[in-house]
Amino acid sequence: MSYKPTDYLPYDFANRRHIGPSPAEMEDMLEVLGVDSLDALIDQTVPQAIRQEQPLDFGKPKSERELLYLMRKTAEKNKVLTSLIGQGYHGTVTPPAIQRNILENPAWYTAYTPYQPEISQGRLEALLNYQTMVSDLTGLEIANASLLDEATACAEAMTMAQRVAKSKATAFFVDENCHPQNIALIQTRAAPLGIEVIVAAPDALEADKVFGAIFQYPGTYGHLRDFTPEIAALHEAKAVGVIAADPLSLCLLKEPGAMGADIAVGTTQRFGVPLGYGGPHAAYMATKQAHARAMPGRLVGVSVDSHGNRAYRLALQTREQHIRREKATSNVCTAQALLAVMAGFYAVFHGPEGLRAIAQRIHRKTVRLAKGLQAAGFKVEPEQFFDTITVDVGLLQRGVLQSAVREGINLRRVGDTKVGITLDECTRPATIEKVWAAFGIDKKDTDFTHEYCLPDALIRSSKYLDHPIFHMNRAETEMMRYMRRLADRDLALDRAMIPLGSCTMKLNAAAEMEPISWRDFARMHPFAPADQAQGYAEIIADLSAKLCDITGYAAFSMQPNSGAQGEYAGLLTIAAWHRAQGQGHRNICLIPMSAHGTNPASAQMVGWKVVAVKSAENGDIDLADFRAKAEKHSADLAGCMITYPSTHGVFEETVREICQITHDHGGQVYIDGANMNAMVGLSRPGDLGGDVSHLNLHKTFCIPHGGGGPGMGPIGVKEHLVPHLPGHPQTGGAEGPVSGAPYGSPSLLPISWAYVQMMGGAGLTQATRVAILNANYIAQRLEGAYKVLYRGKQGRVAHECILDTRPFADSAGVTVDDIAKRLIDCGFHAPTMSWPVAGTLMVEPTESETKAELDRFCDAMLAIRDEIRAIEEGRIDRDNNPLKNAPHTMEDLVRDWDRPYSREQGCFPPGAFRVDKYWPPVNRVDNVYGDRNLVCICPPMEDYAEAAE
Amino acid sequence: MSYKPTDYLPYDFANRRHIGPSPAEMEDMLEVLGVDSLDALIDQTVPQAIRQEQPLDFGKPKSERELLYLMRKTAEKNKVLTSLIGQGYHGTVTPPAIQRNILENPAWYTAYTPYQPEISQGRLEALLNYQTMVSDLTGLEIANASLLDEATACAEAMTMAQRVAKSKATAFFVDENCHPQNIALIQTRAAPLGIEVIVAAPDALEADKVFGAIFQYPGTYGHLRDFTPEIAALHEAKAVGVIAADPLSLCLLKEPGAMGADIAVGTTQRFGVPLGYGGPHAAYMATKQAHARAMPGRLVGVSVDSHGNRAYRLALQTREQHIRREKATSNVCTAQALLAVMAGFYAVFHGPEGLRAIAQRIHRKTVRLAKGLQAAGFKVEPEQFFDTITVDVGLLQRGVLQSAVREGINLRRVGDTKVGITLDECTRPATIEKVWAAFGIDKKDTDFTHEYCLPDALIRSSKYLDHPIFHMNRAETEMMRYMRRLADRDLALDRAMIPLGSCTMKLNAAAEMEPISWRDFARMHPFAPADQAQGYAEIIADLSAKLCDITGYAAFSMQPNSGAQGEYAGLLTIAAWHRAQGQGHRNICLIPMSAHGTNPASAQMVGWKVVAVKSAENGDIDLADFRAKAEKHSADLAGCMITYPSTHGVFEETVREICQITHDHGGQVYIDGANMNAMVGLSRPGDLGGDVSHLNLHKTFCIPHGGGGPGMGPIGVKEHLVPHLPGHPQTGGAEGPVSGAPYGSPSLLPISWAYVQMMGGAGLTQATRVAILNANYIAQRLEGAYKVLYRGKQGRVAHECILDTRPFADSAGVTVDDIAKRLIDCGFHAPTMSWPVAGTLMVEPTESETKAELDRFCDAMLAIRDEIRAIEEGRIDRDNNPLKNAPHTMEDLVRDWDRPYSREQGCFPPGAFRVDKYWPPVNRVDNVYGDRNLVCICPPMEDYAEAAE
Repeated sequence: MSYKPTDYLPYDFANRRHIGPSPAEMEDMLEVLGVDSLDALIDQTVPQAIRQEQPLDFGKPKSERELLYLMRKTAEKNKVLTSLIGQGYHGTVTPPAIQRNILENPAWYTAYTPYQPEISQGRLEALLNYQTMVSDLTGLEIANASLLDEATACAEAMTMAQRVAKSKATAFFVDENCHPQNIALIQTRAAPLGIEVIVAAPDALEADKVFGAIFQYPGTYGHLRDFTPEIAALHEAKAVGVIAADPLSLCLLKEPGAMGADIAVGTTQRFGVPLGYGGPHAAYMATKQAHARAMPGRLVGVSVDSHGNRAYRLALQTREQHIRREKATSNVCTAQALLAVMAGFYAVFHGPEGLRAIAQRIHRKTVRLAKGLQAAGFKVEPEQFFDTITVDVGLLQRGVLQSAVREGINLRRVGDTKVGITLDECTRPATIEKVWAAFGIDKKDTDFTHEYCLPDALIRSSKYLDHPIFHMNRAETEMMRYMRRLADRDLALDRAMIPLGSCTMKLNAAAEMEPISWRDFARMHPFAPADQAQGYAEIIADLSAKLCDITGYAAFSMQPNSGAQGEYAGLLTIAAWHRAQGQGHRNICLIPMSAHGTNPASAQMVGWKVVAVKSAENGDIDLADFRAKAEKHSADLAGCMITYPSTHGVFEETVREICQITHDHGGQVYIDGANMNAMVGLSRPGDLGGDVSHLNLHKTFCIPHGGGGPGMGPIGVKEHLVPHLPGHPQTGGAEGPVSGAPYGSPSLLPISWAYVQMMGGAGLTQATRVAILNANYIAQRLEGAYKVLYRGKQGRVAHECILDTRPFADSAGVTVDDIAKRLIDCGFHAPTMSWPVAGTLMVEPTESETKAELDRFCDAMLAIRDEIRAIEEGRIDRDNNPLKNAPHTMEDLVRDWDRPYSREQGCFPPGAFRVDKYWPPVNRVDNVYGDRNLVCICPPMEDYAEAAE
Repeated sequence: MSYKPTDYLPYDFANRRHIGPSPAEMEDMLEVLGVDSLDALIDQTVPQAIRQEQPLDFGKPKSERELLYLMRKTAEKNKVLTSLIGQGYHGTVTPPAIQRNILENPAWYTAYTPYQPEISQGRLEALLNYQTMVSDLTGLEIANASLLDEATACAEAMTMAQRVAKSKATAFFVDENCHPQNIALIQTRAAPLGIEVIVAAPDALEADKVFGAIFQYPGTYGHLRDFTPEIAALHEAKAVGVIAADPLSLCLLKEPGAMGADIAVGTTQRFGVPLGYGGPHAAYMATKQAHARAMPGRLVGVSVDSHGNRAYRLALQTREQHIRREKATSNVCTAQALLAVMAGFYAVFHGPEGLRAIAQRIHRKTVRLAKGLQAAGFKVEPEQFFDTITVDVGLLQRGVLQSAVREGINLRRVGDTKVGITLDECTRPATIEKVWAAFGIDKKDTDFTHEYCLPDALIRSSKYLDHPIFHMNRAETEMMRYMRRLADRDLALDRAMIPLGSCTMKLNAAAEMEPISWRDFARMHPFAPADQAQGYAEIIADLSAKLCDITGYAAFSMQPNSGAQGEYAGLLTIAAWHRAQGQGHRNICLIPMSAHGTNPASAQMVGWKVVAVKSAENGDIDLADFRAKAEKHSADLAGCMITYPSTHGVFEETVREICQITHDHGGQVYIDGANMNAMVGLSRPGDLGGDVSHLNLHKTFCIPHGGGGPGMGPIGVKEHLVPHLPGHPQTGGAEGPVSGAPYGSPSLLPISWAYVQMMGGAGLTQATRVAILNANYIAQRLEGAYKVLYRGKQGRVAHECILDTRPFADSAGVTVDDIAKRLIDCGFHAPTMSWPVAGTLMVEPTESETKAELDRFCDAMLAIRDEIRAIEEGRIDRDNNPLKNAPHTMEDLVRDWDRPYSREQGCFPPGAFRVDKYWPPVNRVDNVYGDRNLVCICPPMEDYAEAAE
C-alpha cells in the first residue's frame, strides 16, 4: 500500500487544519480571479522554468493522532537525566501558572513583534518588566528586551564595545573562565571583523592593548572574582568592560554595575525557561544609559499616546527592523520575546525575596555538596563559589562521569582530570547524595550544615526589584488575572489575520505545539551525552532530510537560531569555502536594493563589502546592472544574496541567469528563504542555482512568532559547502559556532517536524498554492482601490502583494501609518509598512486564512479607501477624520464626541466585529516623544494608580 | 526533622498561591474589623464548643515541584493499556485544539454555571451547539445541556417517564442488553421510589404492565435491533419508550426519534472527552418538545435582550436551582458543562462528514476484526453490529483475557465463556492484529476487506448536523478564533472575583490542573483491571484518608459525581443501615426551611417524607421546633439534614444538640458539606455528631466549576455506616451504585489531592481562616449601606454574608436582579441571588481573593447603594437609571445616549476597569420571553448574519 501523492485528499480533515478556504470558497475565489482552476492560477504565477520536476512526496500524511503517537515514541528515545553540567544551562522550575497561561497560550505565542504598539501594550508591559528585572539585577541603567542566547550576546557585547570605546585598539580580551561556547562564538564573530581575540586569565589583562574585555561571573568553573580593578584599568585605557553574569547569582553577589561594568550580558534561561536541549531562551544585555543607542536588539520604552496617556512601544526602532543597511554592524532583528516574557513573569511571580531564597537554597546545597566531597578527601575548587564547583579526580574522570550517569546524573567533563558540578533550582537532597555516590561517598545530605561560602567582598549590598510590580501578593489568582489582562490588551493571530508581508503569520497548530511541553524535550541539557538525545537526533536528521527534499540542498545545519543568524551562518560557510579554495580574498557581495535589511548587515559581519544592484522599473533585479557589477568585481566576487520570490512578491524569471552569472564570476549564491512559503513543493532554491539558503522555520514551518521571537533559521547548503557548515566546541566541526548551542533552539524543531509530517508533500504543496491563491484574491479585490505594485508577467502576485498608498499623501494627507492605525479599528494588525518600498503596505495572508477573513480584510481596506476619497473630495476634514484619529479607543466613545463623523463610523468601520470588537488600550502612540525621553524601566507605581483613574 | 504544623510559614511562596491577601493587607483588614489578630477574629466567629481538638497535620506541605514529582510517580503506577472493554466507555481522540483551548484554558474551566446569561453568552452558545448536536443525532426535538453520566441519565429517564406517562402502571421495563451499570443504577433508584424493575429481553416486553421501557442501542453485547415495534406497543399502552443510544453509532444507524422513542439518553464521552477512569463526561438526554418541561437538567434556550437582540440563557430555570423543594422528583442540579462543551466542539470540529467517517472507520475495523475471528473458526455474535462483538471462547475465557493483556489490550469478560470487544476511534490496524494474537490468530489487518455489516433496515436515512455551525471550514485558525471569541464573551474567575455564596469559587491552581491532561490519568478505562490502576488507587486511598482527617469520618466513598449525588448516596447509606437494624420503616427526614433545595429532593428520592423545621428569628434552626418534630416522629425518624455552618452563613451553637436529639430518636444526621470551606481545620462534622456528609470537591477542594460542571460529591460516613456505602457491579459491595463508574469522576481527584498536599494541614486551616476574614471584611465594609442578615453571637459572619436588598424594592423600585445586573457593569459576576432568603445577595469571597479585589467589589457595591439613594431621593428617574438599564453594552455607548446619566456613569461605575473593562455582549436578557417561546437548538444561520450586522 505505497502512498502516491496523487492519493492526497486535500479536504480530509487532517489537511484542512492548515488550509483556510474551503473547497467551495476556493471555487468562488477562482471565479473572482477569472481562472478555471488552482492549477491554472499557479501556472500563471509560477514560471514553468523554475518549477521543480518531482512533486514532494513524504508518504502518507499523518493524522494528528498518528503524529502525536510517533512524536511520543520519538520523545521517549531521549533519556532525560539530571544534568549538573551547568555552563550556562540550568535546571529550572517553570511555574505551572506561567507554563499554562503564557507558554501554552496562543494569545501569547501567536503574537507578532510589537511594532504596532497600540495592539501590543500587554506584551510590551511584560517585556518592560523583564527589562526592569535585568536592569535591577545587573545594576545597570538600561536593558534590552532580550537577545538570542548568551554566547551571541557576548559577541554582540564585543562589537558594541568596539562601537562605544574611545580606545583605538583592535583587540578584545576574553577571560579564559568564560564558557567555552562563549569564547568560541566570540572568536567566530571576531575573525571576519579583523578583531584580535586574546583569551587569558584576568590577571593577564593588558588594558591598553584592547578596546574591551569580557569576564564570566561566576566563572565557568565556579570561580568568583571582583572585576572592579580590571574594569577600572580598562576605563583608564578608554576601553570597555563587559561582564557575562548569571542573573540568579546576582541575587546574592555584587552586581556588574557596582564593579563599574559598562555592559552586562547573560542568559535568563534559569528564570523558568525549560532547557529544551539548548533553546530557545532569552539572553539579556544591559548597559549604561549613555550607551543606550549603541545597544543592539529591541528596547521597550515608555511614551505617551495622542491623548497624553502613558503607552509602551519599541524605542529606537530605527536601529533594527529598518536597519541602516550598509552601515549596519549587527544583524540582530529577532529577540526571544516569549522567553523574556516568561523570565520576567518568573521574577514577578517570585519577587526579590523569592529569587533570593532560590539562589540561597542552591548555594547552600552546593556548600553541602562540597563539604561532603572535601570530607571524603576530594580537592574542590574554588574555595568560594555560588553554585558551581570543580573536582580534581585525576585518572578517575571517566569512571566518575560514568558512575554519575548510572546514578541518573550528568556531570561536566573539565579538562582530562576534573569534573564540574553545577546545582540548580531542581536539585534535591537525593541529587546530592547521588553525586556523592558517583564519587563513592556514602553520606546523607543532612550530615552537613549549609552556611554561606561566598567572599564577603562579593556579597551584594544593593537592593533590587523594588518596583511594586515585583511585590504583588503572589496569590495565583492575582497572577493569573494579570497575565490574562495583558494578553487581552493585545491582538494576536488567535483573534484575527495578521497579514504581514514577508512574515508569514500562519497557523501554529495545537498538535504541533503540544510536544514543546513534554519533559523529554523540555528537560534536556544541550551538552548531555549524545546517546541520551537520540529522540532529538532522529528529529533533526529526519527534518533535515525533508528540508533537503523541499529545497534541493544536500545538508542542513540547525544551529542558527534566527533568520538573520542563518544568513550570517550561510555567508560564513561561503567564506570558509572560498578560503579553502585559496580564494579567501573574495569579499564583494552583490545585493539588490530591495533586499531584506539583514542581508547587507550579515554580509558586513563576515567582512564583505556590499555592492548594491539596482531594481528595474518593474521591481525585478536589473539584470544588466547585476551583470555589469559581477563583471566589474569578478576577481573579488564572494557572492550575491537574493530573495526568491523577490521581496516585491514576484517570481522573477531571471533567477537562474543571475545564479549563473554569479557562478561564472566565481561567486556563490545565497538565496534568502524568507519567502519560502511561496515555493514549497513548487520550486527549489537549490535547483535554481542557490548554494545556500536559510529557512525561517518561524515563518514557513509553523514555529510561532511568540510576540517577537523565538525564531529558527537553519541553513541548507549544496554538497561542496557541507564541510564548512558551523561547528561547535561540543560537537566538533572545522568552523566556529554561530549559536550557543549546537542545534540552536532544538525544542522548537518538533513543531516543524510535526507540520511537514501532518501535511505530507502534497499538503505542503497545497499550502503553497493556497497561499498564492489567497494573496491573488486580495490583490484582485483591492485592485482599483489601491494600485498593486509589482506583478508577474501574467499579472499575478506570488504569496504577497504590495499596495501603493503613496498617492494619498498628496491627495488626502493620508500616510501609510494612518491606514495601519485605521486597520486597528477594523480589528486587524496592519500589513508590513513601508517595506520593501516606502509608503506601501505589503500584504501576506498565508494559506491559513479563510475567504471570510480575507473578505473582512478587503472590506476594511475598501472602506478605508472610501474614507480617503471622502477627504480627497473635501467631504471630511483633512486633519480631523477617522484615519487621522485612528485607532479609536473605548475612552473616545465615552468622552464627549465632537468629531465630524459618528461614533459608529469611528469605532465600527467595515471589518470590525461588534460583539467581539477588539479595543486598543491606547490611542496612537507618540514615537518621537518616547525616543526623546527614553525610559526603559517600569514607571513608578503612582503612575499606574493615576492611569487606573 | 519531623514536621510540626507550627513550622508552617503561611507566607512562603508555595502557600500564598491560594491565599489572596498579603500579610500587610491582612493587617489592614483586621484593623477595619477592629480585632487584633486573625486568631481573635476566628475566636469571635467559630464557637469554641465546635472547634476541633487537634490541628490538621499532613506533614510538610509540598511545593509545586515536589507535588508534580510525586504526582508523576503516582501516575506512572497506572498502566494504560488499550481498553476494548466498551460498555459505554471508549477510546477517543481529543483534538489538540480543543484540549488546549477549552480543557486547559481557565477562561472555560473557571467559569460558573451560566445563571447570569449576560456574562455567559459564549458558553451558552457552545452548549446550544451541543444540544443541537444531540437533538440532530437522536432525531428528537429537544435536548438538555447534559447530565452526569449515562447510568444516571437512564435512571432520570425512568423517573421522567413516570412523570409523563399516562399509564398508571408502576413497573419499568429494562432491556437486559443494557449496560450492567445502567441496569444496576436504575434498580438502585427505583427501589426507594417503589418502582418495580423488570429486566428481560425486548421480546418479553409486556407493554401494558409498565409505564415505560428502556432499550440499549447498540446492545451492551453489540446487538442491533429496531425498537419501533416495542415503542409502538408502549405507546399503545400509554407508556413511554426510552432508548439509551451511543451517539456515534447514530451517525450510521437509524435514530431513536425515527423509532418513535420519547426519550433518548446516552453518553457523549467518545466525542473527544478522555476516559479518565470513568469521568467526568457529559451524558445527554433528548426528548420530544411536548415533554420539554418534564425533562431534568439544564436547558439552554434562545431569548432576546432588552433591545430585542438575540441572547441565550438557561431556560425553565425554575425546574432546578430553585427546585420546587417538597415536590421535587429529581435532585439534578449539576451538569457536565465543560465536557458537553468539549463534545459539542468535537462535533463542530468534525462536522457530519467527519463524524460519519469516524463511525465508518470504526465499523469497518470491527468488520475486519470479526472476519478474522470467524475465519479462524470462532463464533462471533451478533451477525450484524456497529463496533461491538462478543466471542464465545468457552473454557478459554481466562486464557484469552490474559493473553490480550500481555498484548497490551483489555477485553471485556462476558459471562463465564465469552469475551466482548469494542473498537473505537483509537483502534489501529496493529490493535486488531494484537487482538487476533490474543486468540492465537496470526493474520494481517489487510488480509480482510471491510464492507459494511449493518442491517439494511437500520441504516440511517435522515440527515443530521445540517446547521451551518457544523459546516465551518474546519481550518484550525477559524476554530481557534471561534473558541477564543466565545471565551471572551464570558466573565470567569480568570478575570474577576465571582463572589457566589455557597458556591466557593476559589482558585483552581495550574499545578493542580496539569495532571488532568496526563495520559496515565486520562486514558484509563473505568473497568480496567484494578492492578492496572494502582496510581488511581493510591490517590483515592490517600485523599480519602486525608478527607477523613479533615471531617472526622471513618471512610469515604468517591462514587457520587456531584454534590446532589452525594446527598442522595448519603441518605441511601442511612436507609440501608436502618434496614439492617430492622428499622426499614423509618422514613421521616427533618430539614430546616433554610436548607439547600437539593436536600428535600434527595430525601424524596430515597422515599422519605420531608418534615420542615422552622427557622428562629436569627436564622438559626428553631431548636424547640426541631425537638418537637423529632419527638413527634420518633418512631419513624430516619434522620435530619442540616448544613454547617448554616446556609445563612452562621456557625450555629446548637449543632451538637440537634445531632443529639436526632440520635436520641433513632435518627441519623446528615451534615451537608456545602459550607465546608468555613470548617476545614477548625471543626469536623464528624465530631459535631454527623453520621454522613458529602464534600463538594468542586467547591472546597479546588475542582473547577467548568461553567456548570463537572462536580464531585464524595461522602464520608461514620464507622457503622461503612458497610452500607454505594457498591458497583464492577467492584462489588452490598448496595447498588449511584454513579456509572465505581469512583465517579476520578480524573478530577488529582486536583483535590494536589491541593491538600500543597497546602498541608496548616495551609488548609489558614485558607479557612482567611475565607472567614475575607467574608467579615466585606460584611464590615458594606454594613450600613446594606443590612447584613444573620450574624453569630459576636457579630461575625462565617465565610459568607447575606446582604438584604429587599428594602430597596419599595424605596427605589430596585430589585436584587437590578443590583446583580449593575454589578456586571462593574466587572463582577453577581453574588448568589435570593438564596437562601428571597431578595438578598449572598456573598462568598473565598480565601483566594486579594484585599484589592475585595475593595473593588465593596467600592462597586457602595456606589450601587449611592445610585439607589439617588433614586430614593428623587435625583434620578425610578425607571430610567443605571440600575434598571444595566448591564450596559458597548452598543449602548455607540448609539445615541438619551439617558439622565452620562455614558461614563453608565458604563464605568466604581469597580469597573477601564482598559480591561469587561463588556457583556448583550443587554439584560428577557427570561419570560425565552420560556414562552422555547427554542433550544441553534437558530438558523440567517439570524446570525442579521445579528452580525
